[in-house]
Amino acid sequence: MQVSIITIGDELLIGQIVDTNSAWLSQEVNTLGLRVKEKMSVADEEAAIVEAFDRALGHCDIVLVTGGLGPTKDDITKNTLCKYFDTHLVLHADLLEQLEAYFKSRGREINEANKMQAMLPENCKVIPNQRGTAQGMWFEKNGKVLISMPGVPHEMKSMFEQPIKQMLKEAFTPPGIFHRNIITIGMGESYIAEKIEDIEDALPDYIKLAYLPSLGKVRLRLSGYGKDEKVLQSEIDPIAAKIVERISNIFIGYDDITLEEYLGKLLKEKGAKMGTAESCTGGSIATAITSIPGSSAYYEGSVVTYSYEVKEALLGVKHETLLKFGAVSEETVSEMAKGLLSCLPVEYGIAVSGIAGPGGGTEEKPVGTVWMAVSDKDRTVSKKYNFTKNRADNIQLSTVYALNLLRMFMLGLV
Amino acid sequence: MQVSIITIGDELLIGQIVDTNSAWLSQEVNTLGLRVKEKMSVADEEAAIVEAFDRALGHCDIVLVTGGLGPTKDDITKNTLCKYFDTHLVLHADLLEQLEAYFKSRGREINEANKMQAMLPENCKVIPNQRGTAQGMWFEKNGKVLISMPGVPHEMKSMFEQPIKQMLKEAFTPPGIFHRNIITIGMGESYIAEKIEDIEDALPDYIKLAYLPSLGKVRLRLSGYGKDEKVLQSEIDPIAAKIVERISNIFIGYDDITLEEYLGKLLKEKGAKMGTAESCTGGSIATAITSIPGSSAYYEGSVVTYSYEVKEALLGVKHETLLKFGAVSEETVSEMAKGLLSCLPVEYGIAVSGIAGPGGGTEEKPVGTVWMAVSDKDRTVSKKYNFTKNRADNIQLSTVYALNLLRMFMLGLV
Repeated sequence: MQVSIITIGDELLIGQIVDTNSAWLSQEVNTLGLRVKEKMSVADEEAAIVEAFDRALGHCDIVLVTGGLGPTKDDITKNTLCKYFDTHLVLHADLLEQLEAYFKSRGREINEANKMQAMLPENCKVIPNQRGTAQGMWFEKNGKVLISMPGVPHEMKSMFEQPIKQMLKEAFTPPGIFHRNIITIGMGESYIAEKIEDIEDALPDYIKLAYLPSLGKVRLRLSGYGKDEKVLQSEIDPIAAKIVERISNIFIGYDDITLEEYLGKLLKEKGAKMGTAESCTGGSIATAITSIPGSSAYYEGSVVTYSYEVKEALLGVKHETLLKFGAVSEETVSEMAKGLLSCLPVEYGIAVSGIAGPGGGTEEKPVGTVWMAVSDKDRTVSKKYNFTKNRADNIQLSTVYALNLLRMFMLGLV
Repeated sequence: MQVSIITIGDELLIGQIVDTNSAWLSQEVNTLGLRVKEKMSVADEEAAIVEAFDRALGHCDIVLVTGGLGPTKDDITKNTLCKYFDTHLVLHADLLEQLEAYFKSRGREINEANKMQAMLPENCKVIPNQRGTAQGMWFEKNGKVLISMPGVPHEMKSMFEQPIKQMLKEAFTPPGIFHRNIITIGMGESYIAEKIEDIEDALPDYIKLAYLPSLGKVRLRLSGYGKDEKVLQSEIDPIAAKIVERISNIFIGYDDITLEEYLGKLLKEKGAKMGTAESCTGGSIATAITSIPGSSAYYEGSVVTYSYEVKEALLGVKHETLLKFGAVSEETVSEMAKGLLSCLPVEYGIAVSGIAGPGGGTEEKPVGTVWMAVSDKDRTVSKKYNFTKNRADNIQLSTVYALNLLRMFMLGLV
C-alpha cells in the first residue's frame, strides 16, 4: 500500500512557511505499516491541484491532502474537491450550530466566511475538527481513498489521530515493515560508516541502513520490508545491538529518545538536579531541557547572563577574570559553572560563553568560538569549540555539545 | 520561468527530518523573480528519482535538487545523475587534494567513502562546496537547467548563495513579480479578512492577497504578477498602506520583520534594556530575543525559575504569595516581573508562569493556563491566557503573547 502526501498552499511554494505536516504524517503513516511513496506541494490553483490528485491517485492507494481549507478567498481546495469528485456543497445545519456556539464561547460573532465552513461536499465522510472551523473530508473512488485535512498543524494532527488513523487501519491491511533507529551524538556519519562497514555489507537486501545526520547528531535507521513485522524485528534487533556495541560511547538510545530525555533519565537515576548559565546560547539550553514534560523533577532553573554586570552579580564571576581573559574564555565559563552551583540549588551546572555571530568576532576569537564548562561540587571540565556556521546553527550546535558534555561528565567519559 | 524543487531522501518520506531546504530555496528563487511551480520529495531510489527529473524538466525550466549526495551507500543521486545525463564519473585530482587537506586540518584521515566525493560527472559544471565534501552539479539540457546540491542545509545554502544564485540570474531573464508582506500579531485571519473585505474585493486580477497564519501571528501577502516589477510595486504599496491603516494596532511591519526585531527597535529607540523571568516558557522568550544579532544592545539577561525556591531566591517572590495563590497566578507573575527589575539592570521585565502540559493541570487551573506580566518602574500589567494546544505549542504561544504584551505595554496600548 503506497501513500502520497499533497500539501496545498501558495505559502509553501513561496517558502513563507516550512511544511512540517508532511513529515509528521509520514511518521504516523509508517507506524501503520504504510509507506509514503512521494510528497508534493502545489499552489492554490485548481489546475495544479487536480493534476496532483490525478497523479497521486494514479500510483498510490491512499492520498493525504493538507491545506487550502481556510475561510479566506485564497483557499479553493474544497470547491476543487467538489468538482473532482463530481459533487456539490450541502449545508450541515448541526455543524453551523456548532460553529456558532464555538464563536459564541469565544465571545465573538460568527462572520459570513466562517459560516461557509458548514458547507461540505455531499459525497464525502465528514471528519470533525475539534480545534478549528475547517472540517476534514474522506473521499473514496475505485477502492482508493483521498483525505483532505486542514493545513494548520495542530488541527490536522488532532483530526488524524482521531479518527482518521483508525479509519485507515480498518480500511487497509498493511504489508510488513519495521524500523529501528540508533541515536548517536558526537561523531560524523562517514566515521560511523567506517566503524560498522562489515555489518552494513552483510545486510540482506530487504534490510536497509540509512544515515540521517543533523547538527551534532547522527541517526542510524535500519529498515526491513516485505516480511512479517515480528520476523523483521527478530532479524533487525540483533543487528542493531551489534552496531551499538561498536559505537557504545556515542550511543544515546533507540528510536525516538533525544539527548535531553537521556539526560533527564540520568539525572533522575542519580536523584540530582541541574541548571544552566548561558551567555551566547541565550536560553536555548534551558529551552531544550524544559521541552521535556516532567523536567521540573530534575531542573531548578537557569540564568542567562548577556552582560559582564549580570555575570558578576548573579554568578559571582570575578571582575578581574572578565577583564583579563574576556567573557569568552576557559576562566570565565569555569567560574560561571562553579558560580551556578552557589546561585541555584543544583548538583550539576552547565555554562556556555561564546561568539554566535555574525558580529563580535576578533582575530584571536573568531565568530564561532565557544567555551563551555560542566561542574559538580568536586570538579569542573571545560572545552572549546570553533563552530563555522551561522548564528542560529552556532547556537544550536553549542546547545547540543553542552548537553553532550554534561552527558559525558556524568558518565565519567570526560 | 517556472522552477521545480526536488528533495531526495528516504528520511523525508519516513518523516524523520522536516524539509526546510525547499522553503528556503523558494524564498531565494522568488527574490530572483522566478516562480516555484511545484515541490516534490522522493525516495533514494533510481526509478523514483528519474521519474521526478522527467516530470520536473517536462514542465519547468529550472530544477533544483537537494539531497542524496552523502558519502554513504544510501546516497545514489550522483550515480543516477550520471545515467540520466548519459555521462560517467571522472576523478577531480584537485578536489581530492582539497578533501585530503580538509580532513587533515581537522586532524583526521580521509576514508574511502570520502575519497569518492572527488569523483564527479564529466559533463556538469562543478559547484564547489565550502562547507562539506559533497560538491554541487549544474547540468544543462535543451536550454533547461538541473542543479544538484547537498541536503545538509548550511552546505546547500552556502553553495546557493555563492555562486548558484548569480549563475541563475545570468542564465534566466525573469518576468515581473512583486510581493509585499504585512506582518500582524494578535488577531485571527477571518477577522482581519472582514476588516479589509472591500479592499480585497477591489484587487485587480493580477494582484493576489493571501493570509498566512502561524501561532499567534498572521502574515498578509500581496503578490503581483506579469508586469514590470517597479510598476507592480507602485500599485501594490498603496494597497498595502491602506490595509495597514485599517489594522494599525496589530501591525508590526512589512516583509520579514519579526516581533523580536520590532521589540529590539522599540527598545533601542528608547535606550532601554529588558530581561525576562520565565517559568513555563523555560527560556523560550530569552531564546527568541537573543536569536536577533545585536540583541546584547538591549538585552541584559534572564532568569528561568522552575521551582518555588528559585523564584524566591532570585526574584524575591514572597513565600506567602506562592503558598496562597500558587506559582500560576496574577500575584506571582506580578511579583516576578517587579522582582526582575531588582535582580537585573533593566527598565522592562516580562514574567510568565503557566502550565504547559501535558501534566500539572487542575480543575481550577487546567493545562494551558498561563499568566504573564510586564513591568517598568511605574506600573505592572498582567494578563491570563487559556491555551489549548500541546506542550510545545503552548510554550510557543506563551512566548509570542508575552512579547506582544511588552510591545503593547511600550506603545501604551495596555
